Amino acid sequence: MPSYTAPIKDIQFVLHDLLKVSEQDIAGYDELDRDFTSAVLEEAGKIASEVLAPLNAVGDTEGCTYENGVIRTPTGFKAAFDQMKEGGWTALDCDPEYGGQGLPYVFNTAVMEPFVSANMAFNMYQGLTHGAYSAIHAHASDELKAKFLPKMVTCDWTGTMNLTEPHCGTDLGLMRTKAEPQDDGSYKITGQKIFISAGDHDLSENVIHLVLAKIVGGPEGIKGVSLFIVPKIMVNDDGSLGDRNAVSVGKIEEKMGIHGNATCVMNYDGATGYLVGEAHKGMRAMFTMMNEARLGVGLQGYAQSEAAYQNAVAYAKDRLQGRAVTGAENPNGPADPLIVHPDIRRNLMDQKSFTEGARALTYWGANLIDRAHRSGDAAADGLVSLLTPVIKGFQTDKGFEMAVQAQQVYGGHGYIEEWGMSQFARDARIAMIYEGANGIQALDLVGRKLAQDGGKHVMAFFEMVKAECKAHTDERMQPFVEGLKNASKQMQAAGMYFMQNGMKNPNNALSGSYDFMHLMGHVCLGLMWTRMAAASYAALDNGASDTAFYEGKIATGKYYMARQLPACAMHLARIETGAETVMDLSAEQF
Amino acid sequence: MPSYTAPIKDIQFVLHDLLKVSEQDIAGYDELDRDFTSAVLEEAGKIASEVLAPLNAVGDTEGCTYENGVIRTPTGFKAAFDQMKEGGWTALDCDPEYGGQGLPYVFNTAVMEPFVSANMAFNMYQGLTHGAYSAIHAHASDELKAKFLPKMVTCDWTGTMNLTEPHCGTDLGLMRTKAEPQDDGSYKITGQKIFISAGDHDLSENVIHLVLAKIVGGPEGIKGVSLFIVPKIMVNDDGSLGDRNAVSVGKIEEKMGIHGNATCVMNYDGATGYLVGEAHKGMRAMFTMMNEARLGVGLQGYAQSEAAYQNAVAYAKDRLQGRAVTGAENPNGPADPLIVHPDIRRNLMDQKSFTEGARALTYWGANLIDRAHRSGDAAADGLVSLLTPVIKGFQTDKGFEMAVQAQQVYGGHGYIEEWGMSQFARDARIAMIYEGANGIQALDLVGRKLAQDGGKHVMAFFEMVKAECKAHTDERMQPFVEGLKNASKQMQAAGMYFMQNGMKNPNNALSGSYDFMHLMGHVCLGLMWTRMAAASYAALDNGASDTAFYEGKIATGKYYMARQLPACAMHLARIETGAETVMDLSAEQF
Repeated sequence: MPSYTAPIKDIQFVLHDLLKVSEQDIAGYDELDRDFTSAVLEEAGKIASEVLAPLNAVGDTEGCTYENGVIRTPTGFKAAFDQMKEGGWTALDCDPEYGGQGLPYVFNTAVMEPFVSANMAFNMYQGLTHGAYSAIHAHASDELKAKFLPKMVTCDWTGTMNLTEPHCGTDLGLMRTKAEPQDDGSYKITGQKIFISAGDHDLSENVIHLVLAKIVGGPEGIKGVSLFIVPKIMVNDDGSLGDRNAVSVGKIEEKMGIHGNATCVMNYDGATGYLVGEAHKGMRAMFTMMNEARLGVGLQGYAQSEAAYQNAVAYAKDRLQGRAVTGAENPNGPADPLIVHPDIRRNLMDQKSFTEGARALTYWGANLIDRAHRSGDAAADGLVSLLTPVIKGFQTDKGFEMAVQAQQVYGGHGYIEEWGMSQFARDARIAMIYEGANGIQALDLVGRKLAQDGGKHVMAFFEMVKAECKAHTDERMQPFVEGLKNASKQMQAAGMYFMQNGMKNPNNALSGSYDFMHLMGHVCLGLMWTRMAAASYAALDNGASDTAFYEGKIATGKYYMARQLPACAMHLARIETGAETVMDLSAEQF
Repeated sequence: MPSYTAPIKDIQFVLHDLLKVSEQDIAGYDELDRDFTSAVLEEAGKIASEVLAPLNAVGDTEGCTYENGVIRTPTGFKAAFDQMKEGGWTALDCDPEYGGQGLPYVFNTAVMEPFVSANMAFNMYQGLTHGAYSAIHAHASDELKAKFLPKMVTCDWTGTMNLTEPHCGTDLGLMRTKAEPQDDGSYKITGQKIFISAGDHDLSENVIHLVLAKIVGGPEGIKGVSLFIVPKIMVNDDGSLGDRNAVSVGKIEEKMGIHGNATCVMNYDGATGYLVGEAHKGMRAMFTMMNEARLGVGLQGYAQSEAAYQNAVAYAKDRLQGRAVTGAENPNGPADPLIVHPDIRRNLMDQKSFTEGARALTYWGANLIDRAHRSGDAAADGLVSLLTPVIKGFQTDKGFEMAVQAQQVYGGHGYIEEWGMSQFARDARIAMIYEGANGIQALDLVGRKLAQDGGKHVMAFFEMVKAECKAHTDERMQPFVEGLKNASKQMQAAGMYFMQNGMKNPNNALSGSYDFMHLMGHVCLGLMWTRMAAASYAALDNGASDTAFYEGKIATGKYYMARQLPACAMHLARIETGAETVMDLSAEQF
């Protein structure tokens, strides 16, 4: 069975060596000194290793069951969930007004990583609650907030997001779920929603559904969509639970992975709902929390890759097979460990250099969200909007790919469920699909974010990269500076191609959107590695004692620059072929 | 539930337009005229669509069960297997002396494709029997052949391959299973083998295990390995079945996919075995059938991609979501079908251009095997030895990747087992692992095949590509010629890098082996698309009536050249960074 150990040193490195969080001028960041974050991360890591990781395979094997109207989560989930609640792990960055601890989002993100690595399906119960909390917190009336948030902050009540219907996922304008206004100001919600993660279960007293629906008589299409709170059990004015609401589970889905999370078809049969924010502005309410939710999914991508990587490394050190081509390294044993073989190392280095780069990018994104929310910094908000589809799309694609590579290290054992490597791949797969399939992320990036505010944010990104390259005159940094400069130029050329050719035919831009998302992903990770290398050299120059750690960072970064950034030229070459070969066939010729 | 239709037109195109099989000067090829192959393929296609495809999900859901010493295959497998046997589908290319039909291997390969696409797990029972048949046919004594082959040709008795042990897969020199010579010339086999596909089941009267074991007192390591026939039930001299042999199933494995195939732990407790070929030359006996077996796995890679692609196309045409960016294409409907969107097309074109290219490469490989075996052509034998690791490694990597992309077209539905897209990905995953994990294929290619016979075969390959480029002076062919020439140069540069740097440090070559396998895969598919485009232009020039078909081939080929060949430069760039960043970390730094 796989094991997991929180990579606290790596997490601390990103928080302190790279982002220097405690020195940043953002409200609440002064609390984040090394000792404090270390102490909290140690605790979180312990729960992740000892409580959540052992339940990961249990959740996969048992899955959730639905009998007699009751969904049961796998053995041990309830006790673990209670432990998470009691430890206050659900409320780290929530508003103190509703019982949260008010810590910065960047730190919440860092603390969540070990939980997601250890047991992604389990952590979704809390993660979705946090998403629903954020939407309610940002848009609902004070009355609704007071009624629902305190119990959601503690996860006594969990939350869900209800968007998809059988005939529409991406194109929510086709939505059929309707909301009929009632005399008391509430609405009756009727319709069917599918793919509702954590839709119902036995972990909490109540489930608070956030539901998109169309108010009867409102505008057509996406402009007529509103957001509602629909509790599973009605909440009385004194906060006590009342009658069951008219919402029920149709069935639970059999999925490729995340079996520990109950994915439900939800039926609303005139269920009582409360409008969140303005009527017909439901999409706007959803969008304000999109950056956060998508960053959370991007984290799932690399967090699964991290867990898979740890086990692949352990196996590669342990499994004796073949001899190093340069001479036996374990001459007294029957064979050398797998890790001596160059192709095994290539595989592991791919994983390591991606995962550590993605961690840095994700925390940086979270840092920018804090800067936007806590300091009202519009530039940070614009930048993180630009980065969000990359963090979500690129990181989940690569995270899955890396989990598959980790599985490959095990040879035949990787295919046997007992060894647990299949689960990492199967669980990671969903992150490419939900919260906007990755093709939609690419569309969002190229069709919207590049041009947002007159292209200001992408220009600022290029300027930032340029400044980064200029800042490092140190000879040792040149492999990083050269690689980053080159990759950034390729990304600029791709942007130029879109501008020049997207006007006459938008298909020329959209045919290259997916490649652009990956190209930009590599530039972002190149930027992260440049900064991490500089931070590592600085630490070494300042006499850091753990030289192997910092030297390892630099070497891993060099691997990324040498072995991953060459993908940028490929993506650019594809982009520059435009729409012609993509759009040439008639539908019948497929 | 997914459906499957045999792509007979595409298969016929490769056999007749591309390979012109009936015009080739190889024994038996004159039988392969268009009408004959069409009639057989129609029949095979019908069985694939109507019998095997409907059992694919059944096999996945039910899996195999092991109770009271008996393994049961999923509902319907036995009846379908009987139907395959009665139709003579198990014996197409087998030796007429043992009841086979003696058809060329290239045609057997073409006929198997629909079976593998429709139900990979099911077809493995027959496929492994065919592999065991080939090894026995090539190496066993006439007496053993007469005793075992006729029943294996009909699949009344099925076969298995027993190589892996718990502590060794790739490094078979570590093998512990032993063979003790008996006075009657037989051996007593003792040991444990794992990951034995089709190891035991209820489809056949007997199972004939081919087992690698070390004869007691023989040479150490890989040089002491011999090959044995070990029947599950002893066969009397009159051919009737006798007592149970001392071989039993330890357990069956829970796997990520191919649930319909029983993957067994096999225990040999002094089981009677018969030596196949010479003592201590077991690996040689295995290797002579390796090209065929690996080609068969390469076929599985693209065959799963083909099945997944067909369903992704159907879904993309059917599912209405969003509007074409260039204006509504289904103005009377609520939305346009997915297939109008450039990124969906990019995804589908990736799949289509890979699958059709891989089919051509696979059949060409099978054609070369026929030329080697039936015409004793050493150059063909050398070439197919070179191509084999590419067909196996590249095609299974890409086949899996394409099955994952097909799944992505379905959005959330792709993750739900009921829709069947997950199964294609999960089943395809094994092909990257078994029959030599893909890292081993890359090692075989770079560490052995490139230098084989003084590098003669790879030089011949380059000459062939060069000649192909020169042959096409037609202006219309230039996109193909240019792309192929360029890709081939990049492959030559990679080979040159290995020669110049692998000498001083072999890790410089082996660190790039995986990239080289993919680089060569793209060159091979570029060559196939160049030839297929030329064949299509020729057909159009000759007044072929189905212009949409041939124009579709050319357009698909252009997509491959424009959008896939740019990967070659990336692989070369990675290769040329050598071993440094790959081997830099100590094991402790991972």
